[in-house]
Amino acid sequence: MVKYLNQTESMNIDKDLFEKYKFSVDQLMELAGQSCAIAIARTYPSLKNSVHKILICCGPGNNGGDGLVCARHLKQFGYFPEIYYPKRTNNILYENLLHQCIENDIPLLKNDVEYIASKQLHQYGLIVDALFGFSFKPPVKDIFIPIIRLLENTIIPICSIDIPSGWNVEDGPPEGGIKPEMLVSLTAPKLCAKKFQGKYHYLGGRFVPKKLEKTYNLNLPEYVETDLILLLN
Amino acid sequence: MVKYLNQTESMNIDKDLFEKYKFSVDQLMELAGQSCAIAIARTYPSLKNSVHKILICCGPGNNGGDGLVCARHLKQFGYFPEIYYPKRTNNILYENLLHQCIENDIPLLKNDVEYIASKQLHQYGLIVDALFGFSFKPPVKDIFIPIIRLLENTIIPICSIDIPSGWNVEDGPPEGGIKPEMLVSLTAPKLCAKKFQGKYHYLGGRFVPKKLEKTYNLNLPEYVETDLILLLN
Repeated sequence: MVKYLNQTESMNIDKDLFEKYKFSVDQLMELAGQSCAIAIARTYPSLKNSVHKILICCGPGNNGGDGLVCARHLKQFGYFPEIYYPKRTNNILYENLLHQCIENDIPLLKNDVEYIASKQLHQYGLIVDALFGFSFKPPVKDIFIPIIRLLENTIIPICSIDIPSGWNVEDGPPEGGIKPEMLVSLTAPKLCAKKFQGKYHYLGGRFVPKKLEKTYNLNLPEYVETDLILLLN
Repeated sequence: MVKYLNQTESMNIDKDLFEKYKFSVDQLMELAGQSCAIAIARTYPSLKNSVHKILICCGPGNNGGDGLVCARHLKQFGYFPEIYYPKRTNNILYENLLHQCIENDIPLLKNDVEYIASKQLHQYGLIVDALFGFSFKPPVKDIFIPIIRLLENTIIPICSIDIPSGWNVEDGPPEGGIKPEMLVSLTAPKLCAKKFQGKYHYLGGRFVPKKLEKTYNLNLPEYVETDLILLLN
């Protein structure tokens, strides 16, 4: 049985990947975001070349970075992502990831939730929630409350990257929290994923060294052949 | 018909990807090496969990970096790569890529071709040629002559990454040059690929922005669904 990680374990594994195994953030973010795009394309093939676009909501940290990479790979796969990115961090990595999206003709939406909500939200066939990741601690900051409320109340399917945003990383959803239809757990699932009641739970991020897997007793299931994602449920 | 690039075009595209599109080398090398590993795993599935290991010969530049990334993904896919890396460049990126391989329990072989040749070469089911890429200009430097001779004379199948090493990037093989069974062209094929007479020619590196494709009239064939490689012949 695969291990579900608590917040401290998640942070320690992340630290090990960068400090001990000397991966760069660029490398692992590329693989993480790519696996999310593959999982989405496999699950929602009807959105390819469709009038229904995909809204990618990106947060200020690495989860948002995964979202930007995911958007770019979705575009390569023939989908039409659009990016909502309300709070940007001054960081050359994120700036470049955003630049790559723009140069791949992915629209960057106006920084205004009212606008998003009024902008015929039904034109989107899927919303990707890349707002907060495994280092999130409540409460949600003021600036993100409107988009979280929008995600809580929409009937459009949501795919959350690693953590459904606003959920406690270990305990799961708050009262009325968002209900993603799909979740892509990166590296290994976090404890809150036990409370996931959507249809599709994937594992992505096929880059965990065996040695690290053993150190943390992750007991990861085996990916099939060269697949970069694995359906867990 | 897909365009075959001359050396100047190859270099200009590379420059654009990094300077104009602001990709990092880490990102694109990760995707390039990953696509090579996927192509190899699809072509030689019998080498998985087999006594026949894969010898990865890495050169001093980015082609060698692609080889290191390819080795790591092959290991993730259940293959047994070993690395021969005769001349290393002082560069934190390559040092980290090598470190990641070692931490993934991929053996780094002694820096000595005689040793490689004597080391029961038949234990390898495939040799990956990641020595020189599209910026190669003859002649082959002395230090690489022994490994090039070994590749020219072996009966073990060879998979070349982007350019069969020792070949002229535009004109193709020198007299007696290596004859790879497989070639993975990255981004777009180079002119020398027209002289490729092996069995499997793949395209990899699915990250080319449409805008760049148009600028250079690459006329890339369409990848299928979420596939990261495409068989060209």
